[in-house]
Amino acid sequence: MNTSPKENPTIMRGVIMHAPGDVRVEDRENPTIVEPTDAIIRLSASCICGSDLWPYRGAEDVDHQAMGHEYVGVVTEIGDDVKTVKVGDFVVGSFFASDNTCEICLAGYQTHCVHRQPGAPTGAQSEYARIPLADGTLVATPGQPDADLIPSLLAASDVLGTGWFAAVAAEAGPGKTVAVVGDGAVGLLGILAAHRLGAERIIAMSRHADRQALAREFGATDIVEERGDAGVERIKELTGGLGAHSVIEAVGTQESMMQAIRATRAGGHVGYVGVSHGVALDGVELFFSGVHLHGGPAPVRRFLPELIQLIWDREIDPGKVFDLTLPLEQAAEGYRAMDERRAIKVLLTT
Amino acid sequence: MNTSPKENPTIMRGVIMHAPGDVRVEDRENPTIVEPTDAIIRLSASCICGSDLWPYRGAEDVDHQAMGHEYVGVVTEIGDDVKTVKVGDFVVGSFFASDNTCEICLAGYQTHCVHRQPGAPTGAQSEYARIPLADGTLVATPGQPDADLIPSLLAASDVLGTGWFAAVAAEAGPGKTVAVVGDGAVGLLGILAAHRLGAERIIAMSRHADRQALAREFGATDIVEERGDAGVERIKELTGGLGAHSVIEAVGTQESMMQAIRATRAGGHVGYVGVSHGVALDGVELFFSGVHLHGGPAPVRRFLPELIQLIWDREIDPGKVFDLTLPLEQAAEGYRAMDERRAIKVLLTT
Repeated sequence: MNTSPKENPTIMRGVIMHAPGDVRVEDRENPTIVEPTDAIIRLSASCICGSDLWPYRGAEDVDHQAMGHEYVGVVTEIGDDVKTVKVGDFVVGSFFASDNTCEICLAGYQTHCVHRQPGAPTGAQSEYARIPLADGTLVATPGQPDADLIPSLLAASDVLGTGWFAAVAAEAGPGKTVAVVGDGAVGLLGILAAHRLGAERIIAMSRHADRQALAREFGATDIVEERGDAGVERIKELTGGLGAHSVIEAVGTQESMMQAIRATRAGGHVGYVGVSHGVALDGVELFFSGVHLHGGPAPVRRFLPELIQLIWDREIDPGKVFDLTLPLEQAAEGYRAMDERRAIKVLLTT
Repeated sequence: MNTSPKENPTIMRGVIMHAPGDVRVEDRENPTIVEPTDAIIRLSASCICGSDLWPYRGAEDVDHQAMGHEYVGVVTEIGDDVKTVKVGDFVVGSFFASDNTCEICLAGYQTHCVHRQPGAPTGAQSEYARIPLADGTLVATPGQPDADLIPSLLAASDVLGTGWFAAVAAEAGPGKTVAVVGDGAVGLLGILAAHRLGAERIIAMSRHADRQALAREFGATDIVEERGDAGVERIKELTGGLGAHSVIEAVGTQESMMQAIRATRAGGHVGYVGVSHGVALDGVELFFSGVHLHGGPAPVRRFLPELIQLIWDREIDPGKVFDLTLPLEQAAEGYRAMDERRAIKVLLTT
């Protein structure tokens, strides 16, 4: 592990998506400090996000793109203006860089920071990454973590923070029935979050035995296998005909959004974090639904200090969503495994 | 004024919309008790709603429909199961009847009551009206009101309650900048509500001098005359580039909804109460906006006790939105005046 700039090699290995379905690990130039607010980190582990499957499947344009936006690692170099992050710190960041001082950040919406930038513009499925606005973006752990904590800290970087935001946006809490649409890593960690936030009943919508098992481990009390209108009907049956108080949407399609809105009782809350693809909401239906709708790119940074502490204290184990570990060199196989739903989430060792 | 059933005549006068643009006042059968939970009221005044203009303009189907859903008046007859409302009570109701005891009502969403019905199925632009679920729907005033309070109590029945809900849904309050899209009665009373709820700054979007004046009287601190993207730009200029914390949408068109969403800062709240017509929200834009969205048909019943007391104590004067008073017989002229924007809101004396 490198802990000082002179140890950084000039060439590193990193994932490039040449085109949909075409993922390669290549020699790439090692990132260097560009702005005085940057830091360089040596990644301790990386991973593949469900949202990486959108370009992989051709649902988003992609052309020789450096992939990866989830990261944990050790700081190897800092720019001249970086004050709070030090070389040698073990840090967790998230997919948007933020100054954490503007009015929007202070309100807890760091993903909409007035100085927002990509969190890892050089890609994070790689050995090193450049992180802009390091002071605002990175949160140091209390010390160097034990190796078994690394997957959970990496989960905090995106999927845990996103599931947590979804549960908060859906106002999961004591006395509430929470339904979760989507059984990927974010949906599963939304269940964990709803459970930690005190929800009384948590209904996981999943038809995969392995994901159902993890859902129950994370706190789901009920499983619904039906989807679409049939899924909505089942949620209503389970909630006295009213619908859930809180629904987490963690997919991003038209069907999943409508399933979430229709499964929510009037006055209830939908927290939606699935990156929207091809969704158009009918104004009349939304108007008469009477639900609250909140979501978008999760301000993971808001929750990082709390989530890191919960992981550090071994109160939660979100790293369980990683059910396949591969070396970075086998990233292409990791993409295939997630695309074919053979893996919930793939960890890449660096 | 009739205060007992035997005084009810068998024929009354009431408004029928035969077709778009064709409003007539006709002899109609006086409503009678149908369900044991019904009450009959003698209207003390009635009025025309901005939402009545949708069918008037052909934007909603209409065929010989009894019009009117805002009402105040004196109870003349009650069904056998009515317990809390008495003959002779002066009452205020709203556009949906609700039992006010189900789980949804108790959560404050009486417009989505599991036993929801139209609030005045026989129409309320008429001399008498049948009100279902009288115990849950009607709220009695502390006594017989002075005549000058009647317009404000009538406003509470819909436009004040709706504007109030919009302000609550937009989380207007101390320290907040609130923008209001729509300068009809609901938008203007949303301003009044935001002011009462303690908003620091209230930006009215209006290009009509008379409405601007009333907006300022109700608490607006700024006026923006621009609309659409230019209006959004002005709101951003007035809010340090960020957008308002809270935006009230009180129109219901695609343009007004997008104006509201785009004028709201990330993490801010849109309270939308304009009945949706032709609105489709793009999922990607909504996702990346980061706003909270809540609205729909306002649960006026939630707010009625508080609003009636504020009016009774002469703390607020929402009746000022009525800038034209006509006898019921001249309802057609009232519709024309509102359609042509010669009047903000028309009160019909009965």
